[in-house]
Amino acid sequence: MAVENRQAEASLDTLHRIFTVPEAPDSTLGRIEKEISENLNAFLQTHIAAQEKPLTEIEKDFSCASVPEQPSFVSEHTHFLLEKLVAQSVHTSAPTFIGHMTSALPYFLMPLSKIMIGLNQNLVKIETSKAFTPLERQVLGILHNLIYGERDAFYQRWMHSAEHSLGAFCSGGTIANITALWVARNNLLKPEGDFKGVAQEGLFRAMKHYGYDDLAVLVSERGHYSLKKAADVLGIGRDCLIAIKTDENNKICTEDLQNTIESLKARNIKPFAIVGVAGTTETGNIDPLDELADIALAHNCHFHVDAAWGGATLMSNKYRPLLKGIERADSVTIDAHKQLYIPMGAGMVIFKNPASMAAIEHHAEYILRKGSKDLGSHTLEGSRNGMAMLVFASLNIISRQGYELLINNSIEKARYFAELIKSDPEFELISAPELCLLTYRYVPEDTQKALAIANDEDKQAIHEALNDLTQYIQKRQRESGKSFVSRTRLMPEQWDRRITTVFRVVLANPLTTPDILSDVLKEQKQLALTSQQSLPKINAITARILSQANLSH
Amino acid sequence: MAVENRQAEASLDTLHRIFTVPEAPDSTLGRIEKEISENLNAFLQTHIAAQEKPLTEIEKDFSCASVPEQPSFVSEHTHFLLEKLVAQSVHTSAPTFIGHMTSALPYFLMPLSKIMIGLNQNLVKIETSKAFTPLERQVLGILHNLIYGERDAFYQRWMHSAEHSLGAFCSGGTIANITALWVARNNLLKPEGDFKGVAQEGLFRAMKHYGYDDLAVLVSERGHYSLKKAADVLGIGRDCLIAIKTDENNKICTEDLQNTIESLKARNIKPFAIVGVAGTTETGNIDPLDELADIALAHNCHFHVDAAWGGATLMSNKYRPLLKGIERADSVTIDAHKQLYIPMGAGMVIFKNPASMAAIEHHAEYILRKGSKDLGSHTLEGSRNGMAMLVFASLNIISRQGYELLINNSIEKARYFAELIKSDPEFELISAPELCLLTYRYVPEDTQKALAIANDEDKQAIHEALNDLTQYIQKRQRESGKSFVSRTRLMPEQWDRRITTVFRVVLANPLTTPDILSDVLKEQKQLALTSQQSLPKINAITARILSQANLSH
Repeated sequence: MAVENRQAEASLDTLHRIFTVPEAPDSTLGRIEKEISENLNAFLQTHIAAQEKPLTEIEKDFSCASVPEQPSFVSEHTHFLLEKLVAQSVHTSAPTFIGHMTSALPYFLMPLSKIMIGLNQNLVKIETSKAFTPLERQVLGILHNLIYGERDAFYQRWMHSAEHSLGAFCSGGTIANITALWVARNNLLKPEGDFKGVAQEGLFRAMKHYGYDDLAVLVSERGHYSLKKAADVLGIGRDCLIAIKTDENNKICTEDLQNTIESLKARNIKPFAIVGVAGTTETGNIDPLDELADIALAHNCHFHVDAAWGGATLMSNKYRPLLKGIERADSVTIDAHKQLYIPMGAGMVIFKNPASMAAIEHHAEYILRKGSKDLGSHTLEGSRNGMAMLVFASLNIISRQGYELLINNSIEKARYFAELIKSDPEFELISAPELCLLTYRYVPEDTQKALAIANDEDKQAIHEALNDLTQYIQKRQRESGKSFVSRTRLMPEQWDRRITTVFRVVLANPLTTPDILSDVLKEQKQLALTSQQSLPKINAITARILSQANLSH
Repeated sequence: MAVENRQAEASLDTLHRIFTVPEAPDSTLGRIEKEISENLNAFLQTHIAAQEKPLTEIEKDFSCASVPEQPSFVSEHTHFLLEKLVAQSVHTSAPTFIGHMTSALPYFLMPLSKIMIGLNQNLVKIETSKAFTPLERQVLGILHNLIYGERDAFYQRWMHSAEHSLGAFCSGGTIANITALWVARNNLLKPEGDFKGVAQEGLFRAMKHYGYDDLAVLVSERGHYSLKKAADVLGIGRDCLIAIKTDENNKICTEDLQNTIESLKARNIKPFAIVGVAGTTETGNIDPLDELADIALAHNCHFHVDAAWGGATLMSNKYRPLLKGIERADSVTIDAHKQLYIPMGAGMVIFKNPASMAAIEHHAEYILRKGSKDLGSHTLEGSRNGMAMLVFASLNIISRQGYELLINNSIEKARYFAELIKSDPEFELISAPELCLLTYRYVPEDTQKALAIANDEDKQAIHEALNDLTQYIQKRQRESGKSFVSRTRLMPEQWDRRITTVFRVVLANPLTTPDILSDVLKEQKQLALTSQQSLPKINAITARILSQANLSH
């Protein structure tokens, strides 16, 4: 028994060491850290395997569900992580990884992240975050200012007010969108007479009290899927998120919107929120926000703008006018981990009116006491880390001017790429870039000619084969590991709203060069030729159509 | 114009540098990083100011709401952060900071965090996370195993199944609890006949379809405030989160629970979820989970266990029996950023049945396609970072045995502290530690005697003054910066459920020593004597009661 105790104590000593003794600089982990600090990109290029391994293979390395019973040495486990995890992760910061809203990040964020993690503040309350609380409130204030540009006095009055909130910092755009619609729902179904409000009494009683048959949220068919999730979680129902048709530029048809609102009202369904999209996820287009603001005003709807991705464009004096009308929104979602170049996990929702969030305010005895300035009383999340510090630092170090350069550069690079695609006879631009996002597909030159004269049946057959081909090329390109574009399915006006699979490219990474863009197209052409099924099929139909056309001449 | 362009290009070059050139080791930020790497604790002790500065003072440094127009040098801004932010942050990892669920963290997590942030994966989909996806699924599997201990075949079958999910990784316990109740709500109000389910049609139609007058979630009055938030956001209503009385040990009274369920049912209100608390936030007690499982089974309720804080106790073979019955829960919340010693931002909800989460499944075109293994189809959040890696590494490096030592040590330290308090005639233990959390207050020895014989009115007066005194001591102690205990308000059985302000101590930091605990009490006694209002008042009433008692003898 005495022996056992001695052993236990010895192990407790070992454990104390991991809490008190840092990794030695020449330890495995110490060396890796140095590598990362000195040249992240080289580290990633060296350690991430170039060739794609099938997921089912990777899963074998992560298949044991037992709680590890015996400790591992840090160095040993680090080797495992390097060989099995890092090697099979995705080089999201590579300039050739242009398929999603990821990018290289400013270097200074790495050591700053370390400070953030070392401090390990919990922003839910002042007692565990202190100066981080006013810092986060300031970040929300700065973003509020970017959107709404109120006078200084406004911010002096509200930014640090215990009873008010200019917004909420959260893990990402989804939580931001949910928060916005939660506030909108609670403000609509607010306390009235004997009714204590939806927050207190729930949605069923609220609907009975107010006498609506249903609620509705309206957004274009290009709206982000998180809005459906919001409609589900908030008890509104996914069916009550009404998708409004978009025009040939992927922007909401405001006439359709108005007609829908009228018809909903006639059926005693309450449209309580209109969501404008400022940078659709799939095509990067911006809804006519000013018009949406007018409609929201006319129908007394909460006007939310989902600018998770496009919101950073407000930093650019040159392109800011694209978002005109956003300053009339009741709430706006912006993700700092997208075009503000912050690591994953930095979303925000900003409210025009500092009193809006009172509709979701909550308190507890041991924290978030009434009258406290604890941030946790206005957030959907509870405990949160100090990510706001990284946004704060980037805003100061990069500044508006710097962000403007980055954003203008991205948009102009996308325009350049669009020209490249248009000038290449074997590609078809499907959606032109309004911001730095565009979609296109590979279509052999002859097939483009054939499509122009094909009958409906042939058109459909070619389209379906092209969809397969696009998917084939995209997968092969991803697997070969040199570059990555994503794919999605659109219903473009120019193709009679046929379902069309397209390559999707986001050009937010400042390190992506024109050469990379040329290479991406070159590789896609080469990959197309390796297709054993779709391309021969496309060529066969093309040949038939063109020869019939020649015959008829 | 040419000049302007050259200037713009030059700035773009500067911006490229921040994306490509790391901070030099001898730069300000480089030196800080080195300091942090070599001795985090020394860094924090040097840089966090010992004396508390009033929040209103701190706010002055974070008061400008303008978007910074001109860039700052990294070194310059780093100085600002050190002087104004770090200096006024909270040393949450200090062994003397025993007021909240924070702790020192294992050192190896610092460089690992750097890898995580450098890789910047987005776990929402495989395309931006690759091996991180199976890794996260494995972490969820290991936690599932820890709770439910299914056979290997179970995990081989479900852990990596595209159509199933053993849980969800999220930013914290609040999102975890919301997710659990979201799943429970959607499974209750599921599709049936023509009704397409609450997810699709919303709560109002669901209630009409199923014919309930209301829903109810039941939890003890010690339940975490996040449950109220969940009831609000899910449209159930805060009033429908029914708080059940607790016994003298802060555990739910199961008889009251059963009576409440019966009476709800009689009123056509559907109790659909029972939440057991495994480690209440304020007192650290664990509900009788086995009994709750029986009741949930009998009434066909979803049984959720909120083990955000206490769940880690399952790692201890010695104390695991305290949570007996958790293996019968339909879902369990565990926060890795609490007693699994992970930095802020690592929550999990685990579901017993791999099919449960289908009730909240969602898909989108460009990601989360049906049949994919993308984690984002089963999470409330969208984009998420790779925190699961830190949990994975800690599970392997510390192992179950290591965690057992840490957890046993914490619980035994709390018992030691409880004895220290009980043996000191000037303190009163209010709630004894079941896990490593306890509450107590300062009560002068004579006052304890007086309270034993006081009439109701005097008792009340002393209590109120003691509440003020506890609050006074807690605030002064926090401000003086040597140590920190938190405070809350309880209604202890032994004081006829009078509202009682108490000190609250959580002993999860392995570096907290017995000496520190003695010093905390010593400082509190000294601070009590500096009270100008409460203590004199208490002493006066005490003296009067005791002298009256003496007279009557």
